[in-house]
Amino acid sequence: MFDKIENLHDLLEVKLQGLYDAENQLIKAMPKMATKATDPQLRMSLDKHLRETENQVTRLEEVAKNLGMDLNGPGCKAMEGMIDEANMLLSMRADDEVRDAAIISAAQGVEHYEIAQYGTAIAFARRLGYNAEAGILNATLVEEKNTNETLTQLAEVAVNEKAA
Amino acid sequence: MFDKIENLHDLLEVKLQGLYDAENQLIKAMPKMATKATDPQLRMSLDKHLRETENQVTRLEEVAKNLGMDLNGPGCKAMEGMIDEANMLLSMRADDEVRDAAIISAAQGVEHYEIAQYGTAIAFARRLGYNAEAGILNATLVEEKNTNETLTQLAEVAVNEKAA
Repeated sequence: MFDKIENLHDLLEVKLQGLYDAENQLIKAMPKMATKATDPQLRMSLDKHLRETENQVTRLEEVAKNLGMDLNGPGCKAMEGMIDEANMLLSMRADDEVRDAAIISAAQGVEHYEIAQYGTAIAFARRLGYNAEAGILNATLVEEKNTNETLTQLAEVAVNEKAA
Repeated sequence: MFDKIENLHDLLEVKLQGLYDAENQLIKAMPKMATKATDPQLRMSLDKHLRETENQVTRLEEVAKNLGMDLNGPGCKAMEGMIDEANMLLSMRADDEVRDAAIISAAQGVEHYEIAQYGTAIAFARRLGYNAEAGILNATLVEEKNTNETLTQLAEVAVNEKAA
Protein backbone atom coordinates (compact mmCIF):
# COMPACT_ATOMS: atom_id res chain seq x y z
CA MET A 1 0.00 0.00 0.00
CA PHE A 2 1.13 3.52 -0.81
CA ASP A 3 1.88 6.20 1.69
CA LYS A 4 3.10 8.61 -0.95
CA ILE A 5 1.72 8.99 -4.44
CA GLU A 6 4.68 10.24 -6.45
CA ASN A 7 3.13 10.62 -9.86
CA LEU A 8 0.30 9.72 -12.19
CA HIS A 9 1.63 6.18 -12.58
CA ASP A 10 1.18 5.66 -8.81
CA LEU A 11 -2.28 7.20 -8.92
CA LEU A 12 -3.23 4.85 -11.77
CA GLU A 13 -2.01 1.95 -9.62
CA VAL A 14 -4.23 3.12 -6.73
CA LYS A 15 -7.19 3.41 -9.13
CA LEU A 16 -6.62 -0.10 -10.49
CA GLN A 17 -6.35 -1.46 -6.95
CA GLY A 18 -9.73 0.10 -6.17
CA LEU A 19 -11.30 -1.34 -9.32
CA TYR A 20 -9.82 -4.77 -8.66
CA ASP A 21 -11.30 -4.88 -5.20
CA ALA A 22 -14.60 -3.44 -6.44
CA GLU A 23 -14.96 -6.06 -9.19
CA ASN A 24 -14.13 -8.86 -6.77
CA GLN A 25 -16.73 -7.57 -4.31
CA LEU A 26 -19.27 -7.54 -7.14
CA ILE A 27 -18.51 -11.13 -8.11
CA LYS A 28 -19.50 -12.12 -4.59
CA ALA A 29 -22.55 -9.83 -4.40
CA MET A 30 -24.14 -10.25 -7.83
CA PRO A 31 -25.38 -13.84 -7.53
CA LYS A 32 -27.52 -12.82 -4.53
CA MET A 33 -28.92 -9.88 -6.47
CA ALA A 34 -29.71 -12.13 -9.43
CA THR A 35 -31.48 -14.66 -7.20
CA LYS A 36 -33.73 -11.96 -5.78
CA ALA A 37 -34.70 -10.64 -9.22
CA THR A 38 -38.05 -11.74 -10.62
CA ASP A 39 -38.04 -10.40 -14.19
CA PRO A 40 -36.35 -13.08 -16.34
CA GLN A 41 -34.59 -10.50 -18.53
CA LEU A 42 -33.18 -8.79 -15.45
CA ARG A 43 -31.88 -12.11 -14.09
CA MET A 44 -30.34 -12.87 -17.46
CA SER A 45 -28.63 -9.47 -17.64
CA LEU A 46 -27.20 -9.86 -14.14
CA ASP A 47 -25.96 -13.37 -14.93
CA LYS A 48 -24.38 -12.13 -18.15
CA HIS A 49 -22.74 -9.23 -16.35
CA LEU A 50 -21.39 -11.57 -13.67
CA ARG A 51 -19.50 -13.50 -16.36
CA GLU A 52 -18.28 -10.23 -17.87
CA THR A 53 -17.10 -9.10 -14.44
CA GLU A 54 -15.03 -12.25 -14.01
CA ASN A 55 -13.35 -11.43 -17.31
CA GLN A 56 -12.86 -7.81 -16.23
CA VAL A 57 -10.90 -9.04 -13.23
CA THR A 58 -8.64 -10.99 -15.60
CA ARG A 59 -8.14 -7.85 -17.70
CA LEU A 60 -7.09 -5.86 -14.63
CA GLU A 61 -4.58 -8.60 -13.78
CA GLU A 62 -3.22 -8.42 -17.33
CA VAL A 63 -2.86 -4.63 -17.22
CA ALA A 64 -1.19 -4.74 -13.80
CA LYS A 65 1.23 -7.43 -14.96
CA ASN A 66 2.16 -5.39 -18.07
CA LEU A 67 2.78 -2.27 -16.00
CA GLY A 68 4.51 -3.98 -13.06
CA MET A 69 1.77 -2.94 -10.64
CA ASP A 70 0.50 -4.60 -7.46
CA LEU A 71 -3.29 -4.94 -7.26
CA ASN A 72 -3.43 -5.36 -3.47
CA GLY A 73 -4.61 -2.04 -2.09
CA PRO A 74 -6.72 -0.54 0.64
CA GLY A 75 -9.98 -1.88 -0.83
CA CYS A 76 -12.86 0.01 -2.41
CA LYS A 77 -15.01 1.50 0.34
CA ALA A 78 -17.36 3.08 -2.18
CA MET A 79 -18.30 -0.33 -3.57
CA GLU A 80 -18.63 -1.69 -0.02
CA GLY A 81 -21.13 1.08 0.68
CA MET A 82 -23.06 0.48 -2.53
CA ILE A 83 -23.32 -3.24 -1.87
CA ASP A 84 -24.39 -2.65 1.76
CA GLU A 85 -27.06 -0.32 0.48
CA ALA A 86 -28.26 -2.83 -2.11
CA ASN A 87 -28.44 -5.56 0.55
CA MET A 88 -30.37 -3.22 2.81
CA LEU A 89 -32.92 -2.62 0.03
CA LEU A 90 -33.09 -6.32 -0.78
CA SER A 91 -33.71 -7.22 2.87
CA MET A 92 -36.91 -5.14 2.94
CA ARG A 93 -40.17 -6.82 2.11
CA ALA A 94 -41.40 -5.63 -1.27
CA ASP A 95 -43.55 -6.69 -4.17
CA ASP A 96 -41.60 -8.42 -6.92
CA GLU A 97 -41.75 -5.54 -9.40
CA VAL A 98 -40.70 -3.00 -6.80
CA ARG A 99 -37.81 -5.21 -5.72
CA ASP A 100 -36.75 -5.51 -9.36
CA ALA A 101 -36.82 -1.72 -9.69
CA ALA A 102 -34.67 -1.48 -6.55
CA ILE A 103 -32.18 -4.02 -7.92
CA ILE A 104 -31.92 -2.13 -11.21
CA SER A 105 -31.35 1.19 -9.46
CA ALA A 106 -28.65 -0.33 -7.23
CA ALA A 107 -26.96 -1.92 -10.24
CA GLN A 108 -27.07 1.36 -12.14
CA GLY A 109 -25.40 3.16 -9.25
CA VAL A 110 -22.64 0.57 -9.42
CA GLU A 111 -22.29 0.81 -13.20
CA HIS A 112 -22.11 4.62 -13.20
CA TYR A 113 -19.49 4.56 -10.49
CA GLU A 114 -17.43 2.04 -12.44
CA ILE A 115 -17.84 4.02 -15.66
CA ALA A 116 -16.34 7.03 -13.86
CA GLN A 117 -13.47 4.99 -12.42
CA TYR A 118 -12.58 3.21 -15.66
CA GLY A 119 -12.92 6.52 -17.53
CA THR A 120 -10.37 8.09 -15.18
CA ALA A 121 -8.04 5.09 -15.32
CA ILE A 122 -8.12 5.12 -19.14
CA ALA A 123 -7.40 8.87 -19.23
CA PHE A 124 -4.42 8.36 -16.88
CA ALA A 125 -3.14 5.39 -18.93
CA ARG A 126 -3.36 7.32 -22.21
CA ARG A 127 -1.62 10.33 -20.68
CA LEU A 128 1.18 8.02 -19.56
CA GLY A 129 1.46 6.48 -23.03
CA TYR A 130 0.18 3.08 -21.88
CA ASN A 131 -1.96 2.78 -24.99
CA ALA A 132 -2.27 -1.00 -25.11
CA GLU A 133 -3.41 -1.03 -21.47
CA ALA A 134 -5.83 1.84 -22.11
CA GLY A 135 -7.31 -0.30 -24.88
CA ILE A 136 -7.74 -3.29 -22.56
CA LEU A 137 -9.45 -1.13 -19.94
CA ASN A 138 -11.63 0.41 -22.63
CA ALA A 139 -13.02 -3.03 -23.50
CA THR A 140 -14.32 -3.16 -19.93
CA LEU A 141 -15.65 0.39 -20.08
CA VAL A 142 -17.70 -0.52 -23.17
CA GLU A 143 -19.19 -3.51 -21.30
CA GLU A 144 -20.08 -1.34 -18.29
CA LYS A 145 -21.78 1.20 -20.54
CA ASN A 146 -23.70 -1.52 -22.37
CA THR A 147 -24.82 -3.04 -19.07
CA ASN A 148 -26.02 0.35 -17.89
CA GLU A 149 -27.89 0.85 -21.17
CA THR A 150 -29.57 -2.56 -20.84
CA LEU A 151 -30.59 -1.76 -17.25
CA THR A 152 -32.06 1.58 -18.33
CA GLN A 153 -34.12 -0.14 -21.02
CA LEU A 154 -35.32 -2.80 -18.58
CA ALA A 155 -36.28 -0.11 -16.10
CA GLU A 156 -38.15 1.94 -18.66
CA VAL A 157 -39.94 -0.82 -20.51
CA ALA A 158 -40.64 -3.62 -18.12
CA VAL A 159 -40.11 -2.98 -14.50
CA ASN A 160 -41.16 0.53 -13.55
CA GLU A 161 -44.40 0.17 -15.46
CA LYS A 162 -45.44 -2.82 -13.39
CA ALA A 163 -44.04 -1.35 -10.17
CA ALA A 164 -46.08 1.83 -10.45
CA MET B 1 -37.48 4.22 8.14
CA PHE B 2 -39.19 1.63 5.98
CA ASP B 3 -39.35 -2.05 6.71
CA LYS B 4 -41.59 -2.73 3.76
CA ILE B 5 -41.47 -1.02 0.39
CA GLU B 6 -45.03 -1.27 -0.88
CA ASN B 7 -44.73 0.43 -4.22
CA LEU B 8 -42.72 2.72 -6.46
CA HIS B 9 -43.75 5.75 -4.40
CA ASP B 10 -42.06 4.17 -1.36
CA LEU B 11 -38.98 3.29 -3.39
CA LEU B 12 -38.77 6.88 -4.64
CA GLU B 13 -38.94 8.03 -1.01
CA VAL B 14 -36.03 5.71 -0.12
CA LYS B 15 -34.05 7.06 -3.10
CA LEU B 16 -34.68 10.67 -2.06
CA GLN B 17 -33.65 9.85 1.52
CA GLY B 18 -30.38 8.47 0.18
CA LEU B 19 -29.78 11.52 -2.00
CA TYR B 20 -30.61 13.89 0.85
CA ASP B 21 -28.09 12.24 3.13
CA ALA B 22 -25.53 12.05 0.29
CA GLU B 23 -25.82 15.75 -0.53
CA ASN B 24 -25.54 16.69 3.13
CA GLN B 25 -22.42 14.54 3.50
CA LEU B 26 -20.95 16.31 0.47
CA ILE B 27 -21.63 19.74 1.91
CA LYS B 28 -19.45 18.76 4.85
CA ALA B 29 -16.75 17.06 2.76
CA MET B 30 -16.33 19.42 -0.18
CA PRO B 31 -14.71 22.38 1.60
CA LYS B 32 -11.83 20.11 2.67
CA MET B 33 -11.42 18.85 -0.89
CA ALA B 34 -11.42 22.41 -2.20
CA THR B 35 -8.79 23.49 0.32
CA LYS B 36 -6.48 20.69 -0.77
CA ALA B 37 -6.82 21.56 -4.46
CA THR B 38 -4.00 23.57 -6.05
CA ASP B 39 -5.30 24.40 -9.53
CA PRO B 40 -7.34 27.63 -9.20
CA GLN B 41 -9.95 26.49 -11.72
CA LEU B 42 -10.44 23.26 -9.81
CA ARG B 43 -10.91 25.16 -6.53
CA MET B 44 -13.37 27.47 -8.23
CA SER B 45 -15.37 24.55 -9.66
CA LEU B 46 -15.54 22.84 -6.27
CA ASP B 47 -16.62 26.06 -4.57
CA LYS B 48 -19.28 26.63 -7.21
CA HIS B 49 -20.51 23.07 -6.87
CA LEU B 50 -20.69 23.43 -3.09
CA ARG B 51 -23.13 26.31 -3.51
CA GLU B 52 -25.11 24.28 -6.06
CA THR B 53 -25.22 21.36 -3.63
CA GLU B 54 -26.72 23.55 -0.90
CA ASN B 55 -29.44 24.49 -3.36
CA GLN B 56 -29.91 20.83 -4.34
CA VAL B 57 -30.67 20.04 -0.70
CA THR B 58 -33.36 22.72 -0.75
CA ARG B 59 -34.81 21.20 -3.92
CA LEU B 60 -35.01 17.77 -2.27
CA GLU B 61 -36.83 19.33 0.68
CA GLU B 62 -39.28 20.98 -1.72
CA VAL B 63 -39.95 17.72 -3.58
CA ALA B 64 -40.40 15.79 -0.33
CA LYS B 65 -42.80 18.40 1.02
CA ASN B 66 -44.88 18.31 -2.19
CA LEU B 67 -45.10 14.53 -2.08
CA GLY B 68 -45.59 14.17 1.67
CA MET B 69 -42.34 12.28 2.10
CA ASP B 70 -39.95 12.06 5.05
CA LEU B 71 -36.29 12.61 4.15
CA ASN B 72 -34.89 10.91 7.26
CA GLY B 73 -33.65 7.53 6.16
CA PRO B 74 -30.92 5.00 6.76
CA GLY B 75 -28.21 7.25 5.29
CA CYS B 76 -26.20 6.82 2.10
CA LYS B 77 -23.44 4.29 2.72
CA ALA B 78 -22.21 4.57 -0.85
CA MET B 79 -21.43 8.26 -0.38
CA GLU B 80 -19.83 7.51 3.00
CA GLY B 81 -17.53 5.07 1.23
CA MET B 82 -16.70 7.50 -1.56
CA ILE B 83 -15.86 10.27 0.90
CA ASP B 84 -13.75 7.91 3.03
CA GLU B 85 -11.88 6.92 -0.11
CA ALA B 86 -11.34 10.54 -1.13
CA ASN B 87 -10.04 11.38 2.35
CA MET B 88 -7.72 8.40 2.20
CA LEU B 89 -6.28 9.66 -1.11
CA LEU B 90 -6.02 13.21 0.23
CA SER B 91 -4.17 12.04 3.33
CA MET B 92 -1.34 10.58 1.24
CA ARG B 93 1.63 12.76 0.44
CA ALA B 94 1.56 13.72 -3.21
CA ASP B 95 2.74 16.41 -5.58
CA ASP B 96 0.20 19.16 -6.14
CA GLU B 97 -0.74 18.11 -9.67
CA VAL B 98 -1.14 14.48 -8.68
CA ARG B 99 -3.30 15.45 -5.71
CA ASP B 100 -5.44 17.56 -8.03
CA ALA B 101 -5.85 14.59 -10.37
CA ALA B 102 -6.88 12.47 -7.37
CA ILE B 103 -9.42 15.08 -6.26
CA ILE B 104 -10.91 15.26 -9.73
CA SER B 105 -11.21 11.50 -9.99
CA ALA B 106 -12.88 11.28 -6.57
CA ALA B 107 -15.29 14.07 -7.49
CA GLN B 108 -16.13 12.38 -10.78
CA GLY B 109 -16.94 9.15 -8.97
CA VAL B 110 -19.34 11.13 -6.79
CA GLU B 111 -20.91 12.94 -9.75
CA HIS B 112 -21.46 9.76 -11.76
CA TYR B 113 -23.03 8.07 -8.77
CA GLU B 114 -25.35 11.03 -8.24
CA ILE B 115 -26.21 11.16 -11.95
CA ALA B 116 -27.34 7.52 -11.70
CA GLN B 117 -29.36 8.15 -8.54
CA TYR B 118 -31.08 11.30 -9.80
CA GLY B 119 -31.70 9.59 -13.15
CA THR B 120 -33.49 6.76 -11.35
CA ALA B 121 -35.44 9.11 -9.08
CA ILE B 122 -36.60 11.16 -12.07
CA ALA B 123 -37.68 8.02 -13.95
CA PHE B 124 -39.67 6.86 -10.90
CA ALA B 125 -41.24 10.31 -10.43
CA ARG B 126 -42.28 10.50 -14.11
CA ARG B 127 -43.73 7.00 -13.99
CA LEU B 128 -45.77 8.04 -10.95
CA GLY B 129 -47.01 11.18 -12.71
CA TYR B 130 -45.10 13.52 -10.38
CA ASN B 131 -44.06 15.68 -13.31
CA ALA B 132 -43.43 18.92 -11.45
CA GLU B 133 -41.17 17.08 -9.01
CA ALA B 134 -39.40 15.28 -11.84
CA GLY B 135 -38.69 18.72 -13.31
CA ILE B 136 -37.23 19.99 -10.03
CA LEU B 137 -34.99 16.94 -9.73
CA ASN B 138 -33.96 17.33 -13.35
CA ALA B 139 -32.59 20.81 -12.61
CA THR B 140 -30.19 19.12 -10.20
CA LEU B 141 -29.35 16.37 -12.69
CA VAL B 142 -28.33 19.01 -15.23
CA GLU B 143 -26.02 20.62 -12.65
CA GLU B 144 -24.43 17.28 -11.79
CA LYS B 145 -23.81 16.54 -15.48
CA ASN B 146 -22.33 19.99 -16.04
CA THR B 147 -20.05 19.59 -13.03
CA ASN B 148 -18.89 16.24 -14.35
CA GLU B 149 -18.24 17.79 -17.77
CA THR B 150 -16.20 20.61 -16.20
CA LEU B 151 -14.16 18.11 -14.19
CA THR B 152 -13.47 16.06 -17.31
CA GLN B 153 -12.22 19.15 -19.13
CA LEU B 154 -10.05 20.19 -16.19
CA ALA B 155 -8.60 16.69 -16.03
CA GLU B 156 -7.89 16.55 -19.75
CA VAL B 157 -6.52 20.02 -20.23
CA ALA B 158 -4.82 21.13 -17.10
CA VAL B 159 -4.20 18.59 -14.47
CA ASN B 160 -3.26 15.24 -15.97
CA GLU B 161 -0.80 16.88 -18.31
CA LYS B 162 1.17 18.37 -15.43
CA ALA B 163 0.73 15.28 -13.27
CA ALA B 164 2.26 12.95 -15.87
